[in-house]
Amino acid sequence: MLWTIIGILAALLTMFGFVPQIIKMWETRSAKDVSGLTLIQFSIGITLWIFYGIHLNDFIIIGANSISLVTIFVALGLYLKLSKGDR
Amino acid sequence: MLWTIIGILAALLTMFGFVPQIIKMWETRSAKDVSGLTLIQFSIGITLWIFYGIHLNDFIIIGANSISLVTIFVALGLYLKLSKGDR
Repeated sequence: MLWTIIGILAALLTMFGFVPQIIKMWETRSAKDVSGLTLIQFSIGITLWIFYGIHLNDFIIIGANSISLVTIFVALGLYLKLSKGDR
Repeated sequence: MLWTIIGILAALLTMFGFVPQIIKMWETRSAKDVSGLTLIQFSIGITLWIFYGIHLNDFIIIGANSISLVTIFVALGLYLKLSKGDR
């Protein structure tokens, strides 16, 4: 039971790890110091995790990474919107 | 074989996902828009993943997350150093 809670907490914290970054970009309307490459690298990596989860038929890997991918895409979209004209 | 490559690639991309962010902070000497909360949340989440991996005796979970944790700590250390005085 304790280990289930630790596993769920671990999954929740990392799945929604970029939420504070999204909130910060949203509030400051600035993404100058944020690395777009980090967001793109995570997008590709997490997409490959989803494929790997499909291969393993592991719904935990598929589910957790799908949620992660959504938050990364929100972060990436906001980053691109805010960086427009900076490059 | 193909799936092993996809799994390894997925692990490498996400383990080192914060490396471009570290390089960007290092080069610009600025971390103003970076969310420290995101880095702290990932640190806690990844630490819990390591505990969960120890519980499962799964060396992949332990190993991958240990490497992730090192890169996150480097990112967090640099963030704190650069943010000193900003707060």
